[in-house]
Amino acid sequence: MSTRERIRTAMAELMRRQGYGVTTVKQVSELAQAPMGSLYHHFPEGKQQIAAEALRAAGAAYIQLLPLLFDPHEDLRAAVPAAFAEAAEQMERAGWVNMCPVVTIAGEIADSEPALREVAAEVVNLWVRECTDYFTRRGLDPAEARRFGFALLSALEGAFILSRTLHSTEPLRAAGQSLAFQMAGDRV
Amino acid sequence: MSTRERIRTAMAELMRRQGYGVTTVKQVSELAQAPMGSLYHHFPEGKQQIAAEALRAAGAAYIQLLPLLFDPHEDLRAAVPAAFAEAAEQMERAGWVNMCPVVTIAGEIADSEPALREVAAEVVNLWVRECTDYFTRRGLDPAEARRFGFALLSALEGAFILSRTLHSTEPLRAAGQSLAFQMAGDRV
Repeated sequence: MSTRERIRTAMAELMRRQGYGVTTVKQVSELAQAPMGSLYHHFPEGKQQIAAEALRAAGAAYIQLLPLLFDPHEDLRAAVPAAFAEAAEQMERAGWVNMCPVVTIAGEIADSEPALREVAAEVVNLWVRECTDYFTRRGLDPAEARRFGFALLSALEGAFILSRTLHSTEPLRAAGQSLAFQMAGDRV
Repeated sequence: MSTRERIRTAMAELMRRQGYGVTTVKQVSELAQAPMGSLYHHFPEGKQQIAAEALRAAGAAYIQLLPLLFDPHEDLRAAVPAAFAEAAEQMERAGWVNMCPVVTIAGEIADSEPALREVAAEVVNLWVRECTDYFTRRGLDPAEARRFGFALLSALEGAFILSRTLHSTEPLRAAGQSLAFQMAGDRV
């Protein structure tokens, strides 16, 4: 891994564990095992610039899970609860870690860090475009596919936080089952 | 408003705007117009104790919206998208403010502040009990009502963050419409 990637990955990990506000450039430097000089060489604007790059990289990686999780299922109504249950089990095995720092950071900084809010918005817009394309290929009309993409992302992100808060898989399982009913309503 | 309430309300407002990590007791004291001595008299354990009381008070207030929003509708399938659309409009009018600091704070501190995570879990458990009771009274069987409560809270909380991130009502509207389809699947 290049120094730049190590710095970005360390920032993502610290944001996942403790949020953006209390994370310091010094902590990033230590976790990345990169001296401060090197860190400011790669990211002259400091903490916010590292966070922006970390969010973009995480966002681009997460959306690649969509076809991986859904392609194996012929029936999308079975795919959705299966994917949510799999996420719930992964979260439990990993000790209730934060599965999506993009959205917890967005929730923390939307008012206080406008530049980072715009980066989070870029990531969410990318996710919605990818969901729309994917569910259109799977047979929904484009407007339905976009609406379902927003519903899926909302349910997943909300349930991630509730499951992590309760240390329980129940919110993720319930949200996944519920979306399957909804898809039945959509006649998928 | 008593001094204690002013302090708690100031903490809730600061957490809403900028999260827990960067909020200082000094900022709370200034916004509440309460001297530091008075603040530590009411909250001897400081910042975390004020945050815990603020989260409990906010959580208890929010759940009272459930019957207010849903009682006027005979058909729950119409009530859900109407409530989500109303929340979206309120959020837009208020300049895309954080509608639920309980969950953004939970997302920020679940790993770094275990005592506050437990307070957030108390609040979420209260919400789920109230949802279960309410939707049972509205005709769902208790297990369905509990599942639907988790699905509703997940969708709402996720969509709050996505709408605030995008400065768009679309996530909340899509999530609300989607839950209505799901309720049709539940034969409500």
